[in-house]
Amino acid sequence: MVKQASPSRILRATLTALAIALTPAAAFADALVDNVTGLTLDKDGKVVRFTGLLLTPDGKVVKLLGAKDKRPEKLDWRADMKGRVMLPGFVDSHGHVMALGFRQIELDLATTKSLDEAKARIAAYVAANPERKWILGGGWNQESWALGRFPTAADMDTAVADRPVVMERADGHALWANSAAMKAAGITAKTVSPAGGRIEKVGGQPSGVFVDAAMALIQKAIPQPLAKDRNAAFLKAQNDLLSHGITATADMGTTLDEWMTYRRMGDAGNLRVRIMSYGGGVDDTVRIGGTGPTPWLYNNKLRLVGVKLYGDGALGSRGAWLKQPYADAPGQTGLGFMSDDVIRNLMSRAAMDKYQIAVHAIGDRTNAQVLDAIDELAETYKGDRRWRIEHAQIVDPADLPRFGKHGIVASMQPVHETSDRQMAEARLGPARLTGAYAWNTMLKNGATLVFGSDYPVERPDPFAGWAAAITRQGPDGQPYGGWQPQEIVGREAAWRAFTMDGAYAGFAEDLFGRLGQGQQADFIIVDRNPLDINPSELRATQVEETWIGGQKVWERR
Amino acid sequence: MVKQASPSRILRATLTALAIALTPAAAFADALVDNVTGLTLDKDGKVVRFTGLLLTPDGKVVKLLGAKDKRPEKLDWRADMKGRVMLPGFVDSHGHVMALGFRQIELDLATTKSLDEAKARIAAYVAANPERKWILGGGWNQESWALGRFPTAADMDTAVADRPVVMERADGHALWANSAAMKAAGITAKTVSPAGGRIEKVGGQPSGVFVDAAMALIQKAIPQPLAKDRNAAFLKAQNDLLSHGITATADMGTTLDEWMTYRRMGDAGNLRVRIMSYGGGVDDTVRIGGTGPTPWLYNNKLRLVGVKLYGDGALGSRGAWLKQPYADAPGQTGLGFMSDDVIRNLMSRAAMDKYQIAVHAIGDRTNAQVLDAIDELAETYKGDRRWRIEHAQIVDPADLPRFGKHGIVASMQPVHETSDRQMAEARLGPARLTGAYAWNTMLKNGATLVFGSDYPVERPDPFAGWAAAITRQGPDGQPYGGWQPQEIVGREAAWRAFTMDGAYAGFAEDLFGRLGQGQQADFIIVDRNPLDINPSELRATQVEETWIGGQKVWERR
Repeated sequence: MVKQASPSRILRATLTALAIALTPAAAFADALVDNVTGLTLDKDGKVVRFTGLLLTPDGKVVKLLGAKDKRPEKLDWRADMKGRVMLPGFVDSHGHVMALGFRQIELDLATTKSLDEAKARIAAYVAANPERKWILGGGWNQESWALGRFPTAADMDTAVADRPVVMERADGHALWANSAAMKAAGITAKTVSPAGGRIEKVGGQPSGVFVDAAMALIQKAIPQPLAKDRNAAFLKAQNDLLSHGITATADMGTTLDEWMTYRRMGDAGNLRVRIMSYGGGVDDTVRIGGTGPTPWLYNNKLRLVGVKLYGDGALGSRGAWLKQPYADAPGQTGLGFMSDDVIRNLMSRAAMDKYQIAVHAIGDRTNAQVLDAIDELAETYKGDRRWRIEHAQIVDPADLPRFGKHGIVASMQPVHETSDRQMAEARLGPARLTGAYAWNTMLKNGATLVFGSDYPVERPDPFAGWAAAITRQGPDGQPYGGWQPQEIVGREAAWRAFTMDGAYAGFAEDLFGRLGQGQQADFIIVDRNPLDINPSELRATQVEETWIGGQKVWERR
Repeated sequence: MVKQASPSRILRATLTALAIALTPAAAFADALVDNVTGLTLDKDGKVVRFTGLLLTPDGKVVKLLGAKDKRPEKLDWRADMKGRVMLPGFVDSHGHVMALGFRQIELDLATTKSLDEAKARIAAYVAANPERKWILGGGWNQESWALGRFPTAADMDTAVADRPVVMERADGHALWANSAAMKAAGITAKTVSPAGGRIEKVGGQPSGVFVDAAMALIQKAIPQPLAKDRNAAFLKAQNDLLSHGITATADMGTTLDEWMTYRRMGDAGNLRVRIMSYGGGVDDTVRIGGTGPTPWLYNNKLRLVGVKLYGDGALGSRGAWLKQPYADAPGQTGLGFMSDDVIRNLMSRAAMDKYQIAVHAIGDRTNAQVLDAIDELAETYKGDRRWRIEHAQIVDPADLPRFGKHGIVASMQPVHETSDRQMAEARLGPARLTGAYAWNTMLKNGATLVFGSDYPVERPDPFAGWAAAITRQGPDGQPYGGWQPQEIVGREAAWRAFTMDGAYAGFAEDLFGRLGQGQQADFIIVDRNPLDINPSELRATQVEETWIGGQKVWERR
């Protein structure tokens, strides 16, 4: 005879089971995304394949399931992906969220192939937006126009003369203004270039292009965007990132007003993408974070992690600070924004309050300067600091091994190499190319290599970056065999730099970057298996769905 | 024979009961604060007495229980107050949270009775804080020193000459600086008083006192406080407010850095008191809120509600803007900070985005100016706007009825009347006292009257304010019968102005301000029944415990 449980005993057992079910990590009432061709890296960076992803109700990974693993019967919900490919969401380690958004609500010249086309685009935009008092935009690159010089205010005046027009260079390191804008900003032949900046001149007169710190001379005259425009720009940017499978991004140089925008979005429940914010300069960073980085806010959607400092300008505008003069501009060595003392003091000021430090360094002189500063500061600020060098673009080969010390993170952008290689050859000459975009050497030297796009300078497309990383070729397949092919990295190493190591670089490896127990369920569904295809197919991979924290936040329609 | 329930039926019933228990509004597993002498106003402003308060687990009032009402058997927790008096938490409708905190970590001169005592206090503070490069503080009032004039830099130099010293007047409308501070700020005999401000002079030289807009000339030289000092100041202020039974406060003129401090506190889980923030000026308000007020943040602890504008200065420093000259300063009519056009444009700019408007108006000229602006703007911005006039201190009797239109809120401070009455008599002469601190007339005219302390100008003690409101007498019982006693308000009307109407004035009447179903359980335990005692006993009431959202956040030790 079977001994029957008494009602009170059953009740007690039920209460106990329910109490367990109510704890967040419970296996009861989980959700299952099933029937996937699942690929991820594990915490050692090894590829793991799976067919089902079990999640908690609040969007964390419980476990990866293989084809033979039994599926739980009790589930909150279940999604059948019909065999499609699931990957962890990408981490873009270097982008500018608000600039990406404004690029989309302002005039975008990124695809223009000539100065005339740019002028026509500007004139058409003004005709279509007669109410705008200032015409703003960006994306131009005189290199793509085969112009052989910077554009001028006189060029732009022939398109629009009756109101100020200001267009940012694709790399964000120069502005092109018309005469009305220069007049509004009070620029005359007597205006002096500020330290770290350069007013381009033609015949002793300001030509209309303002490089690096000189940009501020024009920017101070531009009216601040309205809050509604900031909100709209954010939503555009977020949608763009999600559509490319980016589920987390570093925001490099967040201003106070940008931070306020993110908070408004979080307060209103509109933050989807995870933002690791690096405040623009020490002052704004401290105004935001106070005595240190913020906690993760809005259910792990936003955190002020550290500070972004600018060590120099960009190569295209000859603002990158070089040890030896530019090959194509004798005597010019670019713009070092800070003295050795200033950069150390700023880094020290931020490190003191445990902000992570990320320094923009393009030229070999600046890279050496930042490495020197880290050498010195690492003596004082011990422990797990993850000093970041952003771009690490042109490095003296003698300095490359130094990236392997002090746990330095080299935060690099594969597509910059393929976009810039011809310009870089012109700027540097052949002798200095060995330490240019030296991804593989960074890995060999033991640096943590992480990848991003520097959007909106480039499109925020990780597949374009991944393809560039494993080929050193542009979308046109050029050059054959790859440019400086010794710096090609392996497919899995590149993937890791666009995912889990990007999370690590922002102190977020316990939260996201791969699919594994306890990680946030941030994943994407794509139209092909990126580990199985040739580079041009990899480049053409399309994201079909983007999920963050177990919720679908974007879908291709 | 009793029919026995089957195990499975019991299990189902248990599951159902538990499912109900998990919904937030469930009556199951509530909490009870019992055995209280409970007093509150109901939504019509009538006194309600109760002996128990039933709360939800998340800290809302379920219902008030009378002595005969049955208590639920199943409770999350139960507190026995042993018959002590429970009141709803107070709402201070006009205060300055961060200034209250800094007053406590900087030098406080509020209790000084003479210039010599103030000088001794400053010298002692410098000796005790040798590492401080700038000596900051406030709370002085030359009226309390019987000095018959403003103090001077020369006075202060005899106490401290080797480093800058800047002391704010008790009303926050003037600074007293020593020569080192004036030198650091670059003040000379040639420095011109800015619009809306006045550099006091002696023999043609700056004397050391800077009134209203002239304060900025000194302030710009003072180093910004460190984030850790801001955090510490906030926690001091919060503790002070809670110790006086203030569970919600309007913060009048929140700067961007103050807002960032509140956010850091909220992010770290350190916000206890509820803050209705009015941003300092339109620019900072819009930088914070963007296209409109924020939602309530941090579980109803912080909200940007609107904007604070300053229409004039204060009476003590003769900055209040009067229709006729000061009785004790022939020819001077004070400082109107804004032209009629500017004030309307600013109010309109903020009202357009649905920010609530609160305008500081002390003098009769400014009160008329703001009333004119509201008359005009109410045509455009219809609906429930709750235009606030802060202080409404000296009003032309002809203008008093105008407070009854457009739903105007008169936000007044009872203790100002008792502190200021002798000074006000000197400044105004007898003829203009009829419309001074005219609380009862405001009520009779149909304005919404709300009370606050203007801390740190006065102590944030609602019982002092309540006693002043019902007596028009100071702590010394002077003057006999009360000053301008026709403006005394009733005990319950004053209570209402310090509680539920204060919530209404910040659009928070659905959240707090009284104890009733659905309201947040914000209450205090005090040592006597304020409805049963004489005014001097009322003034001496001590808060024993302060609870916010059903949690004890402060207790007297």
